[in-house]
Amino acid sequence: MQIDMENRLVNSLEPVLLDGEWQVASSCGEFQALNPATGEQLERRFPVSDWSDCDRALDAAVKAAEALREAEPEILASFLEAYALGIEQESHELAELAAMETGLPFQPRLKDVELPRTVNQLRQAAQAAREGSWALPTLDTKANIRSYFAPIGPVVTIGPNNFPFAFNGASGGDFAAAIAAGNPVIVKAHPAHPRTTQRLVELAFAALRQTQLPPATIQLLYRLGHADGERLVSDPRVAATGFTGGRGTGMQLKAAADRAGKLIYLEMSSVNPVVVLPAALAERSAAIAEEFGTSCLMGAGQFCTNPGFVLLVEGPATESFISAVQSKFRATPPGTLLGPAVRSGLIESTSKLIAAGAQVLAGGEAAAGPRIAFDNTLLRISGAQFLAQAQLFQTEMFGASTLFVIAQNMAQTVDILRHLEGNLTGTIYTASAGESERDYQLVAAALRPRVGRLLNNKMPTGVAVSPAMNHGGPYPSTGHPGFTAVGIPASIRRFAMLQCFDNVPQERLPRLLKDVMPGSAWRLVDGQWTRGNIERSES
Amino acid sequence: MQIDMENRLVNSLEPVLLDGEWQVASSCGEFQALNPATGEQLERRFPVSDWSDCDRALDAAVKAAEALREAEPEILASFLEAYALGIEQESHELAELAAMETGLPFQPRLKDVELPRTVNQLRQAAQAAREGSWALPTLDTKANIRSYFAPIGPVVTIGPNNFPFAFNGASGGDFAAAIAAGNPVIVKAHPAHPRTTQRLVELAFAALRQTQLPPATIQLLYRLGHADGERLVSDPRVAATGFTGGRGTGMQLKAAADRAGKLIYLEMSSVNPVVVLPAALAERSAAIAEEFGTSCLMGAGQFCTNPGFVLLVEGPATESFISAVQSKFRATPPGTLLGPAVRSGLIESTSKLIAAGAQVLAGGEAAAGPRIAFDNTLLRISGAQFLAQAQLFQTEMFGASTLFVIAQNMAQTVDILRHLEGNLTGTIYTASAGESERDYQLVAAALRPRVGRLLNNKMPTGVAVSPAMNHGGPYPSTGHPGFTAVGIPASIRRFAMLQCFDNVPQERLPRLLKDVMPGSAWRLVDGQWTRGNIERSES
Repeated sequence: MQIDMENRLVNSLEPVLLDGEWQVASSCGEFQALNPATGEQLERRFPVSDWSDCDRALDAAVKAAEALREAEPEILASFLEAYALGIEQESHELAELAAMETGLPFQPRLKDVELPRTVNQLRQAAQAAREGSWALPTLDTKANIRSYFAPIGPVVTIGPNNFPFAFNGASGGDFAAAIAAGNPVIVKAHPAHPRTTQRLVELAFAALRQTQLPPATIQLLYRLGHADGERLVSDPRVAATGFTGGRGTGMQLKAAADRAGKLIYLEMSSVNPVVVLPAALAERSAAIAEEFGTSCLMGAGQFCTNPGFVLLVEGPATESFISAVQSKFRATPPGTLLGPAVRSGLIESTSKLIAAGAQVLAGGEAAAGPRIAFDNTLLRISGAQFLAQAQLFQTEMFGASTLFVIAQNMAQTVDILRHLEGNLTGTIYTASAGESERDYQLVAAALRPRVGRLLNNKMPTGVAVSPAMNHGGPYPSTGHPGFTAVGIPASIRRFAMLQCFDNVPQERLPRLLKDVMPGSAWRLVDGQWTRGNIERSES
Repeated sequence: MQIDMENRLVNSLEPVLLDGEWQVASSCGEFQALNPATGEQLERRFPVSDWSDCDRALDAAVKAAEALREAEPEILASFLEAYALGIEQESHELAELAAMETGLPFQPRLKDVELPRTVNQLRQAAQAAREGSWALPTLDTKANIRSYFAPIGPVVTIGPNNFPFAFNGASGGDFAAAIAAGNPVIVKAHPAHPRTTQRLVELAFAALRQTQLPPATIQLLYRLGHADGERLVSDPRVAATGFTGGRGTGMQLKAAADRAGKLIYLEMSSVNPVVVLPAALAERSAAIAEEFGTSCLMGAGQFCTNPGFVLLVEGPATESFISAVQSKFRATPPGTLLGPAVRSGLIESTSKLIAAGAQVLAGGEAAAGPRIAFDNTLLRISGAQFLAQAQLFQTEMFGASTLFVIAQNMAQTVDILRHLEGNLTGTIYTASAGESERDYQLVAAALRPRVGRLLNNKMPTGVAVSPAMNHGGPYPSTGHPGFTAVGIPASIRRFAMLQCFDNVPQERLPRLLKDVMPGSAWRLVDGQWTRGNIERSES
């Protein structure tokens, strides 16, 4: 049943977008979002879709994928750009919606930082789609064997709670990458911000209708039961899933997808170890404490790359550093959390660490009042405590909570690092002069293979949209350390398959593999990266 | 216990290579290889290692991986080149050993084709390691964010029965790629050719000893129990596994690795569909029959890319094509198979297809005599039969056995293609003039997303070592359609992790990411592929 978005009844469930039409969901339940700043339920009622909605979405996506394989990159690019413009034009309304559903500040965070970043990312994806270099066209002209990365097929995007725009399944990095590669996307909204997601999809769909792309290029479901979620990512019609979120859900989806031989790119938990070397503290303890505190408390610490695990070497300088951070944590009012699940996660994780012997330096309890919040929390253990329960003390506390681990010396610091599981980031603070060079080398050797991004004298919280970015890392921070969720062109290749053409004549080759090619994509031709056409005497 | 390879007792079990020493295995059994041409057991007795051998190998590999991270690419390259030379110098003996253990012809196959290919591949890997472009160094100089592919850690290589050199875990594509990326390798030999593998490892180890690389850069186990194999690929100390072999074993290893969050690159079964269009038959039926027969019977059909599934459209031209192939299959003496497992696999798979209704056009039974062989086998079904049991009729018959599927028309041909699971290759034979263009487009649209390599008027059996090659494909032919097992540089990146450096000063960056760099690797600098140093006003 098609729905007139303008005239829908106030009391009915919000429609899903399936196969180019806003439709009444086939639902097995309903839910409402919450305003975390007030604790109040928001008005709109959203459906929990049952399998028949997934089934319809999958059938439509398969057809869309076939049509998209023939789509001109220029049309994909135009769609992404029209959508980016649509978001920009509605930035005020979108930021208001997102602020209401997430508790994140309207300004600067949502309107002035996250939204422009999202728009910029969509435009970068458009440019990459138009240009084509992302596909790594590789030509062996002598043997006439040619290959490149081609669209993979229907992609499911499952975004997290903490970035209603930049990582939203309908507008974030996975969405931009999947579309740029030429795939249809089935968006599974995060149930904490369904209206924001719906509004984004309305804008995307409006932009889509201006193009010749198949209407099922974007589809929207708000929420699924666990079993249906697992069934969706492992369905034969799905090519790949992009998931950003907590480890529990991520692991369940991974297991289901793995069993079916389906690709799933996961961006899961990470404690983001920070090592502050003694020489750095000796040089600028107060400045680092300030920088660390700001980074950790920003956005109530609800970042995948929040520094949640700090390694220090025992001594007076470390004690005064800890005091400075402690003061800042205590003096700063706790931020509003994204939702009750974040709060209960913090209660659970901090309690677990405290029960295991961590000393509470600040916070440790849920804040009072209707607003959803949790104290800024600082916990402390010794290096020996960590080594005795290394797994437990790597429990992520998602929020403004950090564990300080005080090692006896550099040798123990390195030993601790060697017990770390995979993380998205690892950070080393060093002195500006050369005193800490030997320590840096020791720490970097242990930390480097355990993290996707190594930072030096810079907090890891920000994730620049740069071609050189790696927002990924070894398991279990992600499922594969060769892929990044942020950074065009690499992120696009996640949603592509390697296609080789052997002895296929010119007229049957895809555009990017022909000798004479429109556009100016970079291609690896007989071992040399070049742009433009191939001149061959025999052709 | 160290073993003197020259003076070891004839009656003792062959030693494993662990942590730089040929040692008595900690074994839970033993085995001997077979000469498939005579059916006789070969003399040498090899151990089935128990877990303690794996454990020792893993501990040594972890240490080797740490040392290798610091190794100069030039030393890796020298090792690969010295090893390649060693193989070349021993080519006669190696080909004799391999012929005895595999039944494959000494000449031209082993000595003149597979061995030179293997040596060439090792040299290409050496060149890639030395040069560095494979690592896709990507620099954002403005933000000072830089990334590249770095060694991933200990790699387990598990090679197949059918290429004792070119896909051997000790000398083939996975080995070359893992070493070129800078990783130590734990070789698990194929138990059908343990002595060939041992001799290769002897040569590799001799080459290794000439360098400063850690002695545990290469280690060798001959055989493991199933449970230990699954434990090995999922051990926390392993970074990745490269497996080439049958689907049953591959799926078991995949399940184990997936559960542990460990990477495993699988190259499993594939029926390699070939579509011969009516216009192609009208033009040159006899020539295609000859080409197909040769391709299918070569090496007793024991290739991952053997054309085992041929789609034809019914009619008189197809009947005469079938007759020609049938004659060739009947007239050609069946080749010697690699071992009893291949024969029992053929008995099982052909029986299954025949029981399901396939008509026997040639062969179908094991050949008589001590030599391990199976009739060249040609089976036939209709398109309707296929569509009624699409899964069953995609059962791989590994060997010189092919299923002809006769479709009613082009529409049914396309329908059949849309029921195919993922394959390594797909082939379309067309007329040289334009008559078959429309049919080609229809077939290619259905076939292209289901195969890693699409061929036109060329049999898929050969897998050129080319940068543009894709020896991979959608599941279940492999585990991920973005990776290739053959083709440098892409194959190397399977055994690498993406490492990003954010705000790290010049002197702490790896060689390939510094502004001023020795060598001439291609790098993506601020969106442009360039070679050589970066000139910046501010640096």
